[in-house]
Amino acid sequence: MTSLKDETTTTDFESPEYQAKLAGLYRDFDAVGMTPLWRTREGLMPFRPEPRAVPHLWRWAQLYPLAARSADLVPVGRGGERRAIGLGNPGLPGDPYATPTLWAAIQYLAPRENAPEHRHTQSAFRFVLEGEGVWTVVDGDPVAMRRGDLLLTPGWHFHGHQNVSDKPMAWLDGLDIPMVATMDQGFFEFGPDKVRDPSTPDRSRGERLWGGPGLTPVSAAGEPRPASPLMAYRWAHTDAALGAQLELESEGHPGVTEPGHAAVRFTNPTTGGDALPTMRTEMHRLRAGIATARTRTTASSVWQVFDGRGTVTLDGDAHELGHGDVVAVPSWCEFSLHSDTDLDLFTFSDAPVFEKLSLLRTEVSR
Amino acid sequence: MTSLKDETTTTDFESPEYQAKLAGLYRDFDAVGMTPLWRTREGLMPFRPEPRAVPHLWRWAQLYPLAARSADLVPVGRGGERRAIGLGNPGLPGDPYATPTLWAAIQYLAPRENAPEHRHTQSAFRFVLEGEGVWTVVDGDPVAMRRGDLLLTPGWHFHGHQNVSDKPMAWLDGLDIPMVATMDQGFFEFGPDKVRDPSTPDRSRGERLWGGPGLTPVSAAGEPRPASPLMAYRWAHTDAALGAQLELESEGHPGVTEPGHAAVRFTNPTTGGDALPTMRTEMHRLRAGIATARTRTTASSVWQVFDGRGTVTLDGDAHELGHGDVVAVPSWCEFSLHSDTDLDLFTFSDAPVFEKLSLLRTEVSR
Amino acid sequence: MTSLKDETTTTDFESPEYQAKLAGLYRDFDAVGMTPLWRTREGLMPFRPEPRAVPHLWRWAQLYPLAARSADLVPVGRGGERRAIGLGNPGLPGDPYATPTLWAAIQYLAPRENAPEHRHTQSAFRFVLEGEGVWTVVDGDPVAMRRGDLLLTPGWHFHGHQNVSDKPMAWLDGLDIPMVATMDQGFFEFGPDKVRDPSTPDRSRGERLWGGPGLTPVSAAGEPRPASPLMAYRWAHTDAALGAQLELESEGHPGVTEPGHAAVRFTNPTTGGDALPTMRTEMHRLRAGIATARTRTTASSVWQVFDGRGTVTLDGDAHELGHGDVVAVPSWCEFSLHSDTDLDLFTFSDAPVFEKLSLLRTEVSR
Amino acid sequence: MTSLKDETTTTDFESPEYQAKLAGLYRDFDAVGMTPLWRTREGLMPFRPEPRAVPHLWRWAQLYPLAARSADLVPVGRGGERRAIGLGNPGLPGDPYATPTLWAAIQYLAPRENAPEHRHTQSAFRFVLEGEGVWTVVDGDPVAMRRGDLLLTPGWHFHGHQNVSDKPMAWLDGLDIPMVATMDQGFFEFGPDKVRDPSTPDRSRGERLWGGPGLTPVSAAGEPRPASPLMAYRWAHTDAALGAQLELESEGHPGVTEPGHAAVRFTNPTTGGDALPTMRTEMHRLRAGIATARTRTTASSVWQVFDGRGTVTLDGDAHELGHGDVVAVPSWCEFSLHSDTDLDLFTFSDAPVFEKLSLLRTEVSR
Repeated sequence: MTSLKDETTTTDFESPEYQAKLAGLYRDFDAVGMTPLWRTREGLMPFRPEPRAVPHLWRWAQLYPLAARSADLVPVGRGGERRAIGLGNPGLPGDPYATPTLWAAIQYLAPRENAPEHRHTQSAFRFVLEGEGVWTVVDGDPVAMRRGDLLLTPGWHFHGHQNVSDKPMAWLDGLDIPMVATMDQGFFEFGPDKVRDPSTPDRSRGERLWGGPGLTPVSAAGEPRPASPLMAYRWAHTDAALGAQLELESEGHPGVTEPGHAAVRFTNPTTGGDALPTMRTEMHRLRAGIATARTRTTASSVWQVFDGRGTVTLDGDAHELGHGDVVAVPSWCEFSLHSDTDLDLFTFSDAPVFEKLSLLRTEVSR
Repeated sequence: MTSLKDETTTTDFESPEYQAKLAGLYRDFDAVGMTPLWRTREGLMPFRPEPRAVPHLWRWAQLYPLAARSADLVPVGRGGERRAIGLGNPGLPGDPYATPTLWAAIQYLAPRENAPEHRHTQSAFRFVLEGEGVWTVVDGDPVAMRRGDLLLTPGWHFHGHQNVSDKPMAWLDGLDIPMVATMDQGFFEFGPDKVRDPSTPDRSRGERLWGGPGLTPVSAAGEPRPASPLMAYRWAHTDAALGAQLELESEGHPGVTEPGHAAVRFTNPTTGGDALPTMRTEMHRLRAGIATARTRTTASSVWQVFDGRGTVTLDGDAHELGHGDVVAVPSWCEFSLHSDTDLDLFTFSDAPVFEKLSLLRTEVSR
Repeated sequence: MTSLKDETTTTDFESPEYQAKLAGLYRDFDAVGMTPLWRTREGLMPFRPEPRAVPHLWRWAQLYPLAARSADLVPVGRGGERRAIGLGNPGLPGDPYATPTLWAAIQYLAPRENAPEHRHTQSAFRFVLEGEGVWTVVDGDPVAMRRGDLLLTPGWHFHGHQNVSDKPMAWLDGLDIPMVATMDQGFFEFGPDKVRDPSTPDRSRGERLWGGPGLTPVSAAGEPRPASPLMAYRWAHTDAALGAQLELESEGHPGVTEPGHAAVRFTNPTTGGDALPTMRTEMHRLRAGIATARTRTTASSVWQVFDGRGTVTLDGDAHELGHGDVVAVPSWCEFSLHSDTDLDLFTFSDAPVFEKLSLLRTEVSR
Repeated sequence: MTSLKDETTTTDFESPEYQAKLAGLYRDFDAVGMTPLWRTREGLMPFRPEPRAVPHLWRWAQLYPLAARSADLVPVGRGGERRAIGLGNPGLPGDPYATPTLWAAIQYLAPRENAPEHRHTQSAFRFVLEGEGVWTVVDGDPVAMRRGDLLLTPGWHFHGHQNVSDKPMAWLDGLDIPMVATMDQGFFEFGPDKVRDPSTPDRSRGERLWGGPGLTPVSAAGEPRPASPLMAYRWAHTDAALGAQLELESEGHPGVTEPGHAAVRFTNPTTGGDALPTMRTEMHRLRAGIATARTRTTASSVWQVFDGRGTVTLDGDAHELGHGDVVAVPSWCEFSLHSDTDLDLFTFSDAPVFEKLSLLRTEVSR
């Protein structure tokens, strides 16, 4: 702290006497747990976000074999609950967090395996990169998981998984575990060891009730819910919606996010807002040869390549992207994409949190 | 006004002197346009709603031939704008209003006819009882009309109709014309004489952008709209959603409105609320042999039988119902349905108005 | 209807045969209550609002003596309920409505009189032009009425009035009676013949709980209410807020509505929205010599001069305004004020209805 | 992870071969930053919140003299910005955080000192335990600080402080620094070195515009703001509102939070919600001899005794409370108060964050 009081002062800040007094003050502060802002302000209140988390990329080619190896060695069961392996941001050592608020994990279920039911206040979703044969049972409703689908298990809904096929299946798990942990909002409860409904219907009951576009059951109408009642967003619909945006662009009509870049947000039909109260989930599609705008936002996010090849540039550093690769984007990191082929990416972020708290900032440079 | 002042009074209310003074007062009131509440209170402020509108039923067998006859005699064109014939409630003579707030009309478009474009602040929809071959062009977006579909033209959207087929087509038009007229909120503007886009795509652009369940274009996300961006709610989806509710009931799961009675509300995906700001639109399905609860609500409504046969009971009077029949239900009229066969009905009401104004009341007797 | 079908037609619209057929069609329409849009469109759907209500001004010098005369002749009591005399717009003959949605009345309570308790779904308020000595008891809470105060009795709150003084008192009553009547939303119930709490506290219980600026009882926090829990908005606060806006303007700071024109809206502290769900209530103050912008809005309104002199111009016609004069402004009537002296006006309108229904339009010309 | 696969397996989990394979897997996980959920689940997702933060109490008698000593040694100025000394929860060593989301500090301004202007996205308030003579200038509007007042500086509003008196002044600073830091949402900008308006008015401009109960300037009406436009909540109003609740209780009317316990929440008049988007602020008053219910909530909070003596019990441990003492209450800590004298306490918490995210849980035991 270099500035001086207004009035003339004879204090010699360099004198040993002064320094001793100051050291004594700081010792006494410490003794009662007091910390002067003037010694910490820059760290506590930086000029712009200075995340400890760093931009990072994980290769699917590394992640998947490790997940598969673990299936040979470690059974799934009560206590550990899931064969989910969290991706830890190198900037957050010790914590298996992709960003300060988001958990991203590879979950792997071997043939005929069953992951027991539990529930927690953390919101969760699964995004399926490939495969099929697993049903997630959400509050008793079996939901098929298939390539390209987004599956929700909103906070405090019981859920378990069962693989009824002879093949393993792996997917991306996203949760708000870090945010809930940091802010001490977590409750957890065990459910049955086996999923309570082992049936394997093609469509879940939630989809049958809520899956018509703009159609709300009168029995549930007029009651906004914090999370979507639709537990599955099917790839066929997502793919069609992305394709339609690009076709409309070709026909000269609005719809795309920016030239050559289609995107849909998964939303809660009872409110029109995000499907989950704490996480935004979206699917993006770039035509081949497109460069997106460079964007910074205070939301942190995770991206996974679903299909195609391209490049992501994070604060100026370019990284090649291929099938299944996962990218962590911290707050205020400059982000852009370039597509070599048609490129589909899934993404999730903590943007709804900061929108609700009037903290979200975004800058777009074209 | 029969009660007396508290204090003893010597006024003789029967005396000619008093009566003359009173008559003089009322004359002087009249002269400046004053009306004492004590002479009108019961009419102005009844103990419960006492609508002038009456419960009423129109037979499709009468309506349709008249609409068809008019097509032989009266061309559609600029000025009259539409071959729409409004159903006038017998309790509201002189006004072609189904209820004090709702307009219901049969619109008939002859083969190859075109209804010119216009826009108005009134919200409108079409419900298609039968037929196909007409496209409604809404702000330049051609929307196919087919049996069972609900089509929207929200307030201040340009719209025209063209029949590209060799058959006539008729449908139910619903608008908030009476409410907008009574409260002086109407603006109207002519558009082109022919629909601006004569193409006849299977799906409208709005459906391509907004027709995925729970999928929102990122380019439009986070901006609630007063009316739905989805201009068509297709019968295939509505039928499936109603069927699913009844199947779920059979399987022992929730979903139906009451036993044997499925119902879906057409909603605005940007908010989860009603598809139009002033009108609620719903489709109901009763299994054969079901009697609904008796319901009174301060919303007024119009019902049209889409398929099947049954009975409607309005304030105790039962009326047989068949294909296409239209029923007007005034405020606070006791309403119930009984189904002889599987019975599908479309309905619209002014309920959103009174919900927003904290005036809606509903009583259900089982 | 003058336009023709697209195809060549040999119909001679002037021929007696055609005219006979057409007359037959219209007779048959009439028989089943059908009205063709093409014969009514311009009336039903005008290019801009064409209210039957007209701009109108009532002089306080006429209204008050008539109200006083009625007190000599007609007691207040059960049945008539109130000595309230409604101001009827000359454009709406037969209905004592100031505008199609708003009721404005002079209510007069003689010394020691009591107006019995009742409740109704109509929202109501009182604005006190002059005098004091009356308490309105709202759901058991006695609320003093004094010059310049705005007092609420939201829908379905029991209320009665008692004059505990030796002087008569008169005030402006505003209600949404016409809107509720037209749309059949009215319920009414008698309460006790005498106000249930005859005490005469200086401040009501509602003011004691809710009268601190920005202070909400924790016991009621987080629960938005349709109407304000604050039953009285006191003149001292209103006057200070208007004065502050003009002082801030003089000091070079924002706050006024336009130059020389201060205005406050009475709001519901649980939402920040209008104090009543169906009516907007505001107090305006003009410095001497100010001309406001000319404004058209689809809301209809009533204005009353509280203090000062000036001119109101309604669709181009200027009228002098003085103490207590009441003005009705229909939808889309161009309205402006000019102040000769400092000029205070109270106003209420139906704007919240049309805001909630996405129908409100306003044009300001400077 | 102790459970087994369903199928019979011959794996010997205790064998050296297995253990070596497993160790190899975990090494390979580490190398790519992967962490298995089954080794961390209990820490990441506890059965109920297990905050690192602990219940803690700081004595004013310790805090104030240290703050005063620092004024003799450390000038206030650009860079350090404020003589604010943060209270660090012993459970969160290294971070000067009262709870994982809340910063609480003693700020001390010596006679004639000036704290330079800056702004930041963090929301802040000051609660004044004693003294007067300082003005906080918020976006150019000087706001007097006096005993019992709550002063706001919402996110991204410039603010500085000046002490115009010959006495020092100290107060409690509350901010959402930890939450904003953890989630990387912070921006910070320097303003002028001296407050831009050195005037010392009795009431701020914001209070003059927004300080009338239920009165909204028409120029700002209909536009909800994320934070309150009222920068000061004065003790006179708070005191009166608390007193009124207890008087009403004595008179037999509702208003108090529980018997003998009055409480007001500081709210945003544009929405009726919390005054700040991320923090709840309240003032509580207990009659002498009252014991509150025992409450657990997932919100964390800080309390400061304003006046009186009593006891706080935190997870079963009782602590005496006196003037100025500060208490940190972590998530899910059982909290209750007992009053020896009339007892006034200020409190703030992060409850709005979890309400908006649908995570807040509260349990009350009586």
